[in-house]
Amino acid sequence: MSTRSAADEEAASQEHKHLFFDDYSEGAHPDILDVLQETNLQQERGYGLDRLSARAVQLIHAALKDRSAAIHFVSGGTQANLVVLAALLKPYESVVAAGTAHIFVHEAGAIEATGHRVQTIHAPLGKLTVQSLKPVIEAHSDEHMVKPRAVFISQPTELGTIYTKSELRALYRFCRHHDLYLYIDGARLGSALAAKESKLTFADLPALCDVFYIGATKNGGLFGEAIVIVNERLKQDFRYHLKQRGALLAKGRAIAAQFIALFANGLYLKNAEHANEMASKLAAGIEACGYGFLTNCVTNQIFPVFPNRVVEALRKDYGFHSWLSVGQERTAVRLVTSWATEEAAVDDFLADLKACS
Amino acid sequence: MSTRSAADEEAASQEHKHLFFDDYSEGAHPDILDVLQETNLQQERGYGLDRLSARAVQLIHAALKDRSAAIHFVSGGTQANLVVLAALLKPYESVVAAGTAHIFVHEAGAIEATGHRVQTIHAPLGKLTVQSLKPVIEAHSDEHMVKPRAVFISQPTELGTIYTKSELRALYRFCRHHDLYLYIDGARLGSALAAKESKLTFADLPALCDVFYIGATKNGGLFGEAIVIVNERLKQDFRYHLKQRGALLAKGRAIAAQFIALFANGLYLKNAEHANEMASKLAAGIEACGYGFLTNCVTNQIFPVFPNRVVEALRKDYGFHSWLSVGQERTAVRLVTSWATEEAAVDDFLADLKACS
Amino acid sequence: MSTRSAADEEAASQEHKHLFFDDYSEGAHPDILDVLQETNLQQERGYGLDRLSARAVQLIHAALKDRSAAIHFVSGGTQANLVVLAALLKPYESVVAAGTAHIFVHEAGAIEATGHRVQTIHAPLGKLTVQSLKPVIEAHSDEHMVKPRAVFISQPTELGTIYTKSELRALYRFCRHHDLYLYIDGARLGSALAAKESKLTFADLPALCDVFYIGATKNGGLFGEAIVIVNERLKQDFRYHLKQRGALLAKGRAIAAQFIALFANGLYLKNAEHANEMASKLAAGIEACGYGFLTNCVTNQIFPVFPNRVVEALRKDYGFHSWLSVGQERTAVRLVTSWATEEAAVDDFLADLKACS
Amino acid sequence: MSTRSAADEEAASQEHKHLFFDDYSEGAHPDILDVLQETNLQQERGYGLDRLSARAVQLIHAALKDRSAAIHFVSGGTQANLVVLAALLKPYESVVAAGTAHIFVHEAGAIEATGHRVQTIHAPLGKLTVQSLKPVIEAHSDEHMVKPRAVFISQPTELGTIYTKSELRALYRFCRHHDLYLYIDGARLGSALAAKESKLTFADLPALCDVFYIGATKNGGLFGEAIVIVNERLKQDFRYHLKQRGALLAKGRAIAAQFIALFANGLYLKNAEHANEMASKLAAGIEACGYGFLTNCVTNQIFPVFPNRVVEALRKDYGFHSWLSVGQERTAVRLVTSWATEEAAVDDFLADLKACS
Repeated sequence: MSTRSAADEEAASQEHKHLFFDDYSEGAHPDILDVLQETNLQQERGYGLDRLSARAVQLIHAALKDRSAAIHFVSGGTQANLVVLAALLKPYESVVAAGTAHIFVHEAGAIEATGHRVQTIHAPLGKLTVQSLKPVIEAHSDEHMVKPRAVFISQPTELGTIYTKSELRALYRFCRHHDLYLYIDGARLGSALAAKESKLTFADLPALCDVFYIGATKNGGLFGEAIVIVNERLKQDFRYHLKQRGALLAKGRAIAAQFIALFANGLYLKNAEHANEMASKLAAGIEACGYGFLTNCVTNQIFPVFPNRVVEALRKDYGFHSWLSVGQERTAVRLVTSWATEEAAVDDFLADLKACS
Repeated sequence: MSTRSAADEEAASQEHKHLFFDDYSEGAHPDILDVLQETNLQQERGYGLDRLSARAVQLIHAALKDRSAAIHFVSGGTQANLVVLAALLKPYESVVAAGTAHIFVHEAGAIEATGHRVQTIHAPLGKLTVQSLKPVIEAHSDEHMVKPRAVFISQPTELGTIYTKSELRALYRFCRHHDLYLYIDGARLGSALAAKESKLTFADLPALCDVFYIGATKNGGLFGEAIVIVNERLKQDFRYHLKQRGALLAKGRAIAAQFIALFANGLYLKNAEHANEMASKLAAGIEACGYGFLTNCVTNQIFPVFPNRVVEALRKDYGFHSWLSVGQERTAVRLVTSWATEEAAVDDFLADLKACS
Repeated sequence: MSTRSAADEEAASQEHKHLFFDDYSEGAHPDILDVLQETNLQQERGYGLDRLSARAVQLIHAALKDRSAAIHFVSGGTQANLVVLAALLKPYESVVAAGTAHIFVHEAGAIEATGHRVQTIHAPLGKLTVQSLKPVIEAHSDEHMVKPRAVFISQPTELGTIYTKSELRALYRFCRHHDLYLYIDGARLGSALAAKESKLTFADLPALCDVFYIGATKNGGLFGEAIVIVNERLKQDFRYHLKQRGALLAKGRAIAAQFIALFANGLYLKNAEHANEMASKLAAGIEACGYGFLTNCVTNQIFPVFPNRVVEALRKDYGFHSWLSVGQERTAVRLVTSWATEEAAVDDFLADLKACS
Repeated sequence: MSTRSAADEEAASQEHKHLFFDDYSEGAHPDILDVLQETNLQQERGYGLDRLSARAVQLIHAALKDRSAAIHFVSGGTQANLVVLAALLKPYESVVAAGTAHIFVHEAGAIEATGHRVQTIHAPLGKLTVQSLKPVIEAHSDEHMVKPRAVFISQPTELGTIYTKSELRALYRFCRHHDLYLYIDGARLGSALAAKESKLTFADLPALCDVFYIGATKNGGLFGEAIVIVNERLKQDFRYHLKQRGALLAKGRAIAAQFIALFANGLYLKNAEHANEMASKLAAGIEACGYGFLTNCVTNQIFPVFPNRVVEALRKDYGFHSWLSVGQERTAVRLVTSWATEEAAVDDFLADLKACS
C-alpha cells in the first residue's frame, strides 16, 4: 500500500481541474486568517504563555465540558504523536497500533526515533478491538520482550472508518484494566464527530481516553494541533517534553489564534460537516455508477474501487492517490474532501466518472 | 544566568507600556499576512512539494547567489537545530558550542535527546575561536571519548555579539582542516547581516559553513526558519530526517509564503535594519545616561548594566529579562528590539530611564 | 508464542533429571577454563588491545581464510545485535527481519532503543527469502516511511532451521543490488555449520554477508561473541560504537581467551557437532515413538509436537520450554541440546517418552 | 587531560618490567577461577535466575546488612552506568557530575546515547559538594532547560580522592531535599572502603544513596559489577532495562560465581586493602625522593608529579599513564596498583626512581 506512487507524482505535475488528494490542499479557512489579522499587533508573551493561548484553551475546555484537561498546541500531527508517546512511555515500553496506523506507516520511524517500538495488529478496517488487543497484551509477559503500555488509535482511522462511542468505551475499559494508556490521534477528529454513526461529541472524549489531539491542519487550519491531556499522571512537566522535541513555538499565539477561530463559533464542526457532506455526495454518485468501496463511507475519506481504465481516465483531470491494487484489473483509490471542497468539483467528478464508465 | 526569573514572570502579569522581552512579541509583518491571504485558496501539494515552496527557494537562492543549496522550511529554531545535528552526526559524535549557546542553555536537552553530546567551551562573549576550539579537538583522541564532529555557532550570538566575515572564514578553514562540520544558527541572522560591523552578506554564507538556517520567527515571520544545506554530503535524504522529527509540515506553503514575503523585496533585511536601528538608539540613550554594557551593542539585543534600583523602577512600565547579576548592586538586563518596535517606545523608555537615574 | 510460560517457571523450581531448556545451562567447556587459568597472571593491556585478543583474531582469521575482517569481542548476543545495527543505520533507516527474529521477539526493544524500527516479515519457518523481502523493499519508497537498510537473519534461525549456502548467496546478491546490508546473527552459528544440510564453512561466510557474529555463549563459552565485519565501509570507528554501548570490556582478554580455546584446535565445531548429534538422536527416538515436528530437525534445537498429556508427564523430570499450542490438545515444545549434553540424558528422555506415550 | 597519549601507546608496545597502567592488567584472583571451576558443570537457569546468582545476592545482602536491596549483575562499568541512568531519568532530565567524572570523560557519550545530558561541575579534586551543586540546581528552573534529576559521583573519584561518610551524608541529604537521585559509581569501591580516611563500610551505603554499584573488574574479578538498588521506586522492571541494553547475560552465573568468591570470605576488601597498601608504599617512597602529588594518596591510584626527564627514564621499564602537564617541565602521572601488585614491583620502581632522580 502506498499513497504516493510515481504515477501520482507524475500526475500531480499536470494541471488538474480539481484535487482530491487530501484535506490540506488549501490554506486556512478565511475566519482563521481574520483572527490572525485582528490580533497581529498585540504584544504577547512567548512560548504559549500568551493571552491568545489562554483564550483558546478556555474555548476548548468549554467544548469538552472539562476545565481540568491540560491543553498544548503543536505544529503538526507527527510532532503531536512523537511528543505524546515519548512522554508516556518508559524506555522498554511500546505502543500498540493497527498495521495501518499513521505512526507505523507514514511517520518515517518517528516513534522509534524516540526509542520505542510500534507494535502492530492486523486490522483490515484500520480499527483495533478488545479481541485483537488481548492476545498481544497477554503474549508480552516477561522482560525479554517489550512491554506494551500505550494503545494508539486514529479517530477516524486511516481507512476512513470510525470508532463508535460504545467501541471506544470498551477499548478504554480494557486499557485501564491492563494499565495501558489510550491515545487517540485526532488528525481528522472533526470528521469523526460530524459522522452521525459515531454518536460522539467533544464532551464525551475526556472520559474515553487518557490523551488525544484535536487536529486543525486537516480541518481548515493553516497548521497546528491541540494536544488534550486528561490523565492527571501525564500532565506534569509536559512543557519540557514539548520544548525538548522542538514543539514549543516561540509564537504559540499563531496556533492559538486558529483554535480561537475554530472554537469560538463552532467552525471546527462546521468545517468537518461540510467535508463529510461532500464525501457523502461523492460516494452516492459513485455508488450510483455501480462501483463499490474498500470501506464504508462515513467520513471525508472514501475509497472507491475502480477498473484501472477508469482510474487512468480520471487522473487526467483530477488529483487523487491510488491506495491498493484489487486483483489485476481494479484499484482502490482515495478521494478526500475538505472544508474547502466546492459542490461543483464533486459534480464535475461525477459527470466525468459517468462519462468514462 | 537565567532569562526567565520569577520576578520577570510576575512583572509580565502586569500591564506594561512596552515590551522589550524579545523579538517575537507581535504576530507577523503585515506583508507576510498579505501573501498568506493572497495565496490562501490556491490548491497545492502537501509537505513542501508545493509551488509556494519552490518560489521561496528560488528567492533565497537569488539572495545567496547559489542555486545549488538545498533549502528546507521548518517551524522553529530548536527544531532546526535538532534535525540538522541529528542528521550530521554519527551516534558517538558530538557538537562543540559556546557555553552560552542556545542548544546548550535553552533547548531542554533537545540535542542530547537525539543521542549526542553538546560539548561546551567557555566563551565570555558568546563566540568560539580557533584558539578556543583547538585544545578541545586535540584532547578528544580515542574511542573512550566522544568524537567532536560539528561546530555550532549562533550568528549573532546569544549575547548580541557577531562574527565578522574574516572570523567566520578562519573558523571554517579550521573546521574543514579537522573534518568538522560548521553549522550556523541564524535565528537572528538578519540582525547580524544588517550590522555593518559584520561585513557579511547573504551571498557570503555558502562559502563560510556547511549548513545554516535563516530565522523568520524573530525577524517578522509568524513562525518558520529556512535550513540551507551547502555541503553536498549532507543533502541526501534530508527530508527523511525532517519527517522523522515531526518537522515536515503538511502545509509547508504556510512557511514558504512567509519567506516569499521576506525575500521578494528585501523585507528580511529591512526588518533587521529597523530592529538594529532601534537598539542602537536605545543604546546611545542609555550610554548618554552614563551606563555601560555587558557586550558591545551591534545587533538588536543589548545588555545594559543598571543599578538594581533602576531595574526595579523600569520594570513597572517595561517588560524585559534580567540576564546576570553584576556584583551585589547591579544587574545586566536584556533589551530586545524588533521590526515592530516603534520609535516612541524607545523614547518613552529613555525618558523614564533619565527620570529614575 | 512464548518460551517462558508460567508453567515452565514453576516446573523449573522443581528438581529435574535433566534440562533441555537451552544450550547455556552449564558453565564453559573445560578447555576454556584451562586457557583462562593458564593466561591468568599475564599482564596485559586493557580494552581489547591485549595479546590474547590479537591471538584470537589470528585464529579466527585462519578459520575464515580472510585476514582483512575486523573482529571485535563482546559479552553477549543482544549486545552484539544492538551495537552492530546502531552502527549500520542512519536515524531513519530500519532493519528487516523475520517475525520470529530474536531482535524482534526476545530483546526487549533493544534495537528500537537505539532509534530504529525492526520491520518484520511473516516467515513460518523463521527464514527470509528474496521473494518475501522484495515487496517490503519496494513498498518503502518515500520519506514518509522508514527506509529499509539492513537485513537481519539468524543462522540457524530461532526455529532450528538453516539457510543453505545457495540461499545465503541469493539473499546477499539481492541485498547488494538494493544497497542493503546483510547481517547474520550467529548465536548458534556452530550448529548451522555442523549441519551437513547447510553446505557451509567458516571460509564461506565473508563472501555471503557484510557482518556477522560467531556466538560462544551457546556453544561452550562462558560468555562472549565475536563480531566479524567484512564490509570495509563498516569498519571505521567501530570501537567508538562498542565503547558507547558499554560493550568494550576492560578485560577483553577474558573473551579472547575463550575464543583461543574454541579456535585453536577446532573445538568450536566439535562442540556444535556433539550438540547436533544429540539432537539428532533425540529426534530419531521421538519420531520412532510416532510424533512429528514443527520444523525439520537439523540443528541443536528441535520442536516435537506432543499431546498435552505427554508434555505434562515429561515435565516432571525434564526441563524444557513450551513453544506453541497446536490445536487444543497438542503443544510444540522446544528441546535444546548442547556440547555438554550426555547421551544418557537423551536415553533417559526417550525411555520416559516411550513409557508415557 | 588524557590517560592514553601516543607516547603511552608507544611505550606499551615495549617490554616492561612492571605495569602500573591500571588495576585490570591481570586476569582474576585465583579464588574466583576456583569457584568458576567448581560450579562449572552444574546445570542452571539462564539470565540471572540461577542458584549462583541467588547465593551471590545473599552474600552481598549480608555485607550490606540490608536484605531489601535489589541486586543485578552486569558485565562492566560503562554498562552499569548507562543502564542505571537510563532507568532513572525521564527524557528531559539530566545527570550532574564532576567534570572529571568517568561518564563525562571516558565513556564515549554512553549516557547521551540514551538521550540525557551529563551536566558537569568544575571539581579540581574530582569531588562534588553541596556548595558546588546548589547553584547548578537553582539555575535550572524552567522547561527551556534540562531538569537535573540525578547526581553521579565516583567513590573513589577518578583522581584517587574519596568522599568521607559525613560528606556522603551531606550530599545525600541535599539530594533528597531537591528530589535528586544520588548514584555512586563504585568501579573501585573496595579501595574507598579500605581507605581508613573514608570511615565507610558496606553497611553504611544503603542509607547514603539511591543506587550504587560494586565493581569487581578492577578489584580482582575477571569482569562484572553488581548494581545495588536501594530506592524502592527504582526497583520495578529493572530487568527490562538490563535486557534492553544488552546487559542481561545468558550465563549470569559467570558473574555471580565471581561475587560468591569475592564476598564469601571477605576477599573483596582484602584485595582492595592489598592494592591500597602497595599504593601507599609507592607514595611514601616517592615522597621520600622529594616529589609531590596532584591529589592526596589514599586509594590505589596515586598521581605523583615528576620532572619530564624522570618520566622518560621510568617509561623504559614501567607502564603507566601521563595524566596532566604541570607547567612546562613537569608531568603528573598516574600509578595504579591492584590485588595482584607484588611488593617487589614497588621496590623495583622506587629503586629505579631513586637512581634517576
